[in-house]
Formats: sequence, C-alpha cells, structure tokens
Amino acid sequence: MYFETIREMKKMLGQLDKWLEAAASHAQSKSFDPNVFVGLRLAPDQFPFSRQVQSACDTLKLGVSRLSAREAPSHPDTEQTLEELRQRVKTTLAYVDGFRAKDFESAATRVIQQARWEGKVMSGADYFLEHMLPNFFFHVTHAYAILRHNGVNLGKRDYLGTLTLRSP
Amino acid sequence: MYFETIREMKKMLGQLDKWLEAAASHAQSKSFDPNVFVGLRLAPDQFPFSRQVQSACDTLKLGVSRLSAREAPSHPDTEQTLEELRQRVKTTLAYVDGFRAKDFESAATRVIQQARWEGKVMSGADYFLEHMLPNFFFHVTHAYAILRHNGVNLGKRDYLGTLTLRSP
Repeated sequence: MYFETIREMKKMLGQLDKWLEAAASHAQSKSFDPNVFVGLRLAPDQFPFSRQVQSACDTLKLGVSRLSAREAPSHPDTEQTLEELRQRVKTTLAYVDGFRAKDFESAATRVIQQARWEGKVMSGADYFLEHMLPNFFFHVTHAYAILRHNGVNLGKRDYLGTLTLRSP
Repeated sequence: MYFETIREMKKMLGQLDKWLEAAASHAQSKSFDPNVFVGLRLAPDQFPFSRQVQSACDTLKLGVSRLSAREAPSHPDTEQTLEELRQRVKTTLAYVDGFRAKDFESAATRVIQQARWEGKVMSGADYFLEHMLPNFFFHVTHAYAILRHNGVNLGKRDYLGTLTLRSP
C-alpha cells in the first residue's frame, strides 16, 4: 500500500496547489500583496507558511526516494512568492510522477538513516508510518490552517479534493 | 496495511492525550481556566478545539467500524472540559484496541456509505485513503495547531511521539 498512499499524498499536494491559487485570489480581491502569506505563522516559533509548503514537498520527495533507494534531487528553500511555491509543488509532483508501484517492492525492509537520528536507523515500514505519513499531513494541514486563519475561503472539500464516489 | 496504519493513528491519539495534558499544565502555570482551550478556534468558521478532538476520535472510531462492518458505539459530543476530552480519547482508544488485523481482511472491498454522499458509495480502499486518513490527520493537526497558536509549549517530537529507532 506504499504506492497507493503516496498517490493520495500526491493528490494532497495537488490540493495544496489549489489553496495557493485561492490565497492569491483572496489577496487580489482584498488588494493586498499575495506574498504576505509566505511569511505568516500560527506561532512565532513555528515555521512560516513557505516552510510548511517546502516541508510538505520535501517529506514526500525524500520519502519516495528513501523508500526506493534513489537519490533525491536537491530543492533549495529559496521561494519568496506564492508563484514560486506553486512551482515548488509542481516540481515535486513531476519528480514523484516518475515512481511506479514496483519501486516500493522492497520499501518495508529498507534501512533508513537520517543525520538527526545519531547513528540509529529505522526500517522502511516504520519510517513510512511513524515519520513520513504524519509529517506530511502535519505540514500540509499547517499550510491549510495558516491560510484559513488569515481569511482565505477554504473548506473541507478543498482539503480532501474529489472523492472516488460511485453508484452502489 | 490497514491495521498498521490504524495502529499509527492510535499512537497519534495517544500523543493528542499528551497535548491535552500539556494544555492543562500551561493553563495552571499561567493561572487561567484550562477549559478556555475547549472553545478556541483558528478561524471563526472553523470547528473549535473540542470539535477537532471529537472529530479526530470519531474519524478513527467510525473508520475502523465501517472497514470491518461493525456497528460503532455512539459518543455524543458533550465534552466541555479538557478532562472530558481526555476521557473521550481514552474511550476511543479502548474501543479501537478491540480490533485485530484479521478484522480488516475484507476492508478494501467493503462498500462504504454516508448520508452526505447522497446515495453514492466508496470502496473501503478509497474511503480509507481519500477520506479516513486525510480527515484523521486534519483534525489531529488542527488540535495541535490551536494549542501551539495559543502558547502551549509543544514541538515536533510531541507531535510524532517516540520513533522505532534501532541500531544499524
């Protein structure tokens, strides 16, 4: 189910792109600089909006790379406008589009390392569930919450996106 | 992987319980009524803190019930204190503790219905990935964000909880 969950994460980044568009429209309708959003935070010691978007992108990018033992491309965190953040989302999605279900066949047993773990490692299975999944939704939801807190007109349907509903 | 992901969701509710405890301690140290937190919101047209906690609990409770074709117990949304919200989390966890991996063997192909879908249905697989998973993290993260926004001293480690790190 790695690939299926990653597909849902891709969908969420697609939703995030729509929120970025909604934020720009909101700013335009209120005649303020849309790039004010980039620096907004919910708490002074939390990441600003830009970093929430960058972290959501990187959590997915690094996750798929580590779980398939590929080298991830480097994306420096230099975005300063909503348009640049939209481009970051697009670049991330284009990269993740290159992965197929078979790339994750050995994901569960891969050994995942991070400098901050001071020599310890996680299995791919544990990393995916305990780290990648909650972190991804943490940053996506914080991006959403920052926009909602600052007046952008979004609702649960914008968060979830289109559901695969069918006739019974 | 349904059961494994549900286990991670249970862990997240356990973390949420710790945030509730941290909120109560913060209020005590600042000498204000801890139950003020219950009504706080990030936006006037978003759910208050209490409803974020209740929704996180219900997303998990209803999700495991629907995916295993069991009837979910009813938990009326009457909590008005942090202590009552902690009890709601405990009640939910006790219920979900009763499920085993085998309860989800047919989860992917179950037909999931909700009144709001106006006669349409989702497969269990789609419901789990497109609805239960993002909704659960939406409400858990909003609960966290409301507390952070209002000065409770939490960080990413409190969000993620203990990782299953091991020696290489």
